[in-house]
Amino acid sequence: MEIAFEKAGGLVPAIVQDFATGDVLMLGFMNSAALAETQRTGEVVFFSRSRNKLWKKGETSGHVLKVRELRIDCDADAILARVDAAGPGVCHEGYRSCFFRKFDSNGEVRVTEEKTFEPEQVYGAEKRAGEKR
Amino acid sequence: MEIAFEKAGGLVPAIVQDFATGDVLMLGFMNSAALAETQRTGEVVFFSRSRNKLWKKGETSGHVLKVRELRIDCDADAILARVDAAGPGVCHEGYRSCFFRKFDSNGEVRVTEEKTFEPEQVYGAEKRAGEKR
Repeated sequence: MEIAFEKAGGLVPAIVQDFATGDVLMLGFMNSAALAETQRTGEVVFFSRSRNKLWKKGETSGHVLKVRELRIDCDADAILARVDAAGPGVCHEGYRSCFFRKFDSNGEVRVTEEKTFEPEQVYGAEKRAGEKR
Repeated sequence: MEIAFEKAGGLVPAIVQDFATGDVLMLGFMNSAALAETQRTGEVVFFSRSRNKLWKKGETSGHVLKVRELRIDCDADAILARVDAAGPGVCHEGYRSCFFRKFDSNGEVRVTEEKTFEPEQVYGAEKRAGEKR
């Protein structure tokens, strides 16, 4: 089964789900090389659109995503990685999941989760505002 | 909080997760109008890249996705819809989830789930090969 990388300019969305809890942790993108590296190493590697290169999740923070299983959807244009997530959270803002904001009934967005770590202590001086690691 | 539609050519990926089981059911894309329709109706509406128009999930099959909550990620460029899914499955190939194939340890892709319905009976003569409804 060929993955349909060409359909979205070489990149397919890759959902990361906690294997144990089922929580959706984040969404990244993979190109063919990122998928190959993920399979080779057993840890999630994305392609960073902002940095235009492969991005091993956890390379700075140590919060790597160990792959328990990799799934592909019916059209072969989306990946689901079910993982064991090292560390207290995947989000560069200090939360367990990047989906820590919810739309309320008025369509306003509100933070509904608790912080699980302090980004400054994890990413240190290297951290630049808004940049995922 | 502004959703970053412009970042990916007007479309952001939207993950659909079963509210009760936590299973990831499918991934679609939303533009601003699709998100607004989803919020207005309480049922998931995507933008179909192949048909280039809004696509109410379940419009043919009746397998609508009733939104229990809508989340947005840290960078506001991915949506998570946690839903109650009507019907036996969301996948046009007859499965509960579109992620019914898994990579094995050799990198080969295999079907690991059971079919939950016969697509022909749901989509009828309207169904065209490979087209999601």
